[in-house]
Amino acid sequence: MNRIVNDPNYVVEDMLKGFVKANSDIVAATENSRVLKYVNAPVEGKVGIVTGGGSGHKPAFIGYIGKNMCDAVAAGEIFSSPTAKAFLDAMRAADSGKGVACLYGNYAGDNMNVKMAVRSAKKEGITVKTVVANDDCASAPKTELEKRRGVAGEVLMWKVGGAKASMGADLDEVIAAAQKAIDNTRSVGIGTAPCTIPAVGHPNFTIEDGTMEVGIGHHGEPGIKVEPIKTADEMAVEMLDIILPDLPFASGDEVVVLLSGLGATPVMEQYIVYNKVEEVLAEKGIKVYKAYVGNYFTSLEMMGVTLTVMKLDDELKECIDMPADSVGLKQL
Amino acid sequence: MNRIVNDPNYVVEDMLKGFVKANSDIVAATENSRVLKYVNAPVEGKVGIVTGGGSGHKPAFIGYIGKNMCDAVAAGEIFSSPTAKAFLDAMRAADSGKGVACLYGNYAGDNMNVKMAVRSAKKEGITVKTVVANDDCASAPKTELEKRRGVAGEVLMWKVGGAKASMGADLDEVIAAAQKAIDNTRSVGIGTAPCTIPAVGHPNFTIEDGTMEVGIGHHGEPGIKVEPIKTADEMAVEMLDIILPDLPFASGDEVVVLLSGLGATPVMEQYIVYNKVEEVLAEKGIKVYKAYVGNYFTSLEMMGVTLTVMKLDDELKECIDMPADSVGLKQL
Repeated sequence: MNRIVNDPNYVVEDMLKGFVKANSDIVAATENSRVLKYVNAPVEGKVGIVTGGGSGHKPAFIGYIGKNMCDAVAAGEIFSSPTAKAFLDAMRAADSGKGVACLYGNYAGDNMNVKMAVRSAKKEGITVKTVVANDDCASAPKTELEKRRGVAGEVLMWKVGGAKASMGADLDEVIAAAQKAIDNTRSVGIGTAPCTIPAVGHPNFTIEDGTMEVGIGHHGEPGIKVEPIKTADEMAVEMLDIILPDLPFASGDEVVVLLSGLGATPVMEQYIVYNKVEEVLAEKGIKVYKAYVGNYFTSLEMMGVTLTVMKLDDELKECIDMPADSVGLKQL
Repeated sequence: MNRIVNDPNYVVEDMLKGFVKANSDIVAATENSRVLKYVNAPVEGKVGIVTGGGSGHKPAFIGYIGKNMCDAVAAGEIFSSPTAKAFLDAMRAADSGKGVACLYGNYAGDNMNVKMAVRSAKKEGITVKTVVANDDCASAPKTELEKRRGVAGEVLMWKVGGAKASMGADLDEVIAAAQKAIDNTRSVGIGTAPCTIPAVGHPNFTIEDGTMEVGIGHHGEPGIKVEPIKTADEMAVEMLDIILPDLPFASGDEVVVLLSGLGATPVMEQYIVYNKVEEVLAEKGIKVYKAYVGNYFTSLEMMGVTLTVMKLDDELKECIDMPADSVGLKQL
């Protein structure tokens, strides 16, 4: 594994410095080196949007800071939750007095640290409400939605929440829209090769050559089955077979599809999978209103793809249509 | 190698279909299945911008079709030139009567096929002029610029040429701006792991673990030296030591920096390299006017990075500043 790093223990520091330098028109550093904010945050009169999570998921999480997206983001170590202090400082950086919507993923560390940060923020007079993304169908049965992890559906949650806040909605309205976005969203991933945390130096899980792991998590959490590797078309069908009945999606629905690579899978292959996804959806009478294909939520150099589908209504459409200017999602 | 494909011999076809489906607001298919065009091409009264090249370089080449970018693109097999017929059909799709600027990279197959296409286009009354990108410092000495290959600097050439055409410039003015863009641009890459063409099934070159190849080409063309792998900071310095004296760049210059991953290198690592690049440039009195960091020109799942620096003047700045809406480069 030929990593391009300096000290493997300081990859997050080095990366954050480079990220701010390269994108100084959109993001700014804060006094907390693990918190970045939108250059214009806090935006006067607007509900602040905050998220955070472990590093190694570029462009998530810091890549979604920007206009009509997130106002501040807390960055953790590779695949580890940010601290409660980092979440708190992100909330401080985002609050204009209109309150903060903290939209994050369902992981034990994040849950604990966000909860502590919300309590501390309250003492300072900052009102924070939360939405916890749980779009990953593979991580728990439908009867235990509260156990499901948040994965790439978080990008759509931020897009919707960020747009709603920029439209002038109040905190409860922003929270309601972001909650609806994630409630209407289902994801699943297929992994084909593992990744290596720089400071560890070897993969912390394995996917045998010639096999694929259906339902793999963003940090290599075990999926629901390991199978001999299938064709791109078969993978598309397999992922849709998990996602569509779960919500369920039905003929007549309009949806957003977000197909992300896990890091090292060529974008070419992602489009090959997308080709079949849209074909199958069309056969079922489900219309793709908008598609995002590319590396939107990765896991270092893991190989594989994740498929995310969100069912739309008029409010969600309006939020999806809004322009956005972040490093990871730019929409004119 | 766990590829996500159907028939390895039809990856380009499958990918192009998925690409058009996912991005139908920007790109459209044409009668030639290997040619995609901007949905609004030919744009009335505007010089057409055409490029083309082998597949496997996502978002290059088709990802740079769009508003104020390229009007039509010819797609070849993986790492192989498009046919002369594909280039000709791209020229036809882009021409509004104002002529076509064909801005492509210096490779034997592309040179031959573009030349044939230009002759055929002329017979049909389509005026085509060309700029041949040769920004790769490592592929020939400075005394033989005409032998150098085009690499990620092509993205900046398209950005400048596309913007100039949209400003209403005539064909000669567009060609002059694109030529100036590439003449002012230098690139070099460092490879840390090879890639595998799906239909071949094994890497067509090797990079030993623990080593890196300085000056590697976009298709694994041999570089100028193989060294034990260095730190990210050392790689940044080594690439700048090749690029800066070559133009040369000097104190007081304003530049665009484009740092691209080669495919599988995590974007995190690209920012770690960028951090040092900007630091060294600042020490030398060279100001980064704009930075692009990410996977702008890849080689399937090759690992490594390429560094591109373009020296700016007022005309180039104006072109770089113009908004753009393509899959690979969106700028608000």
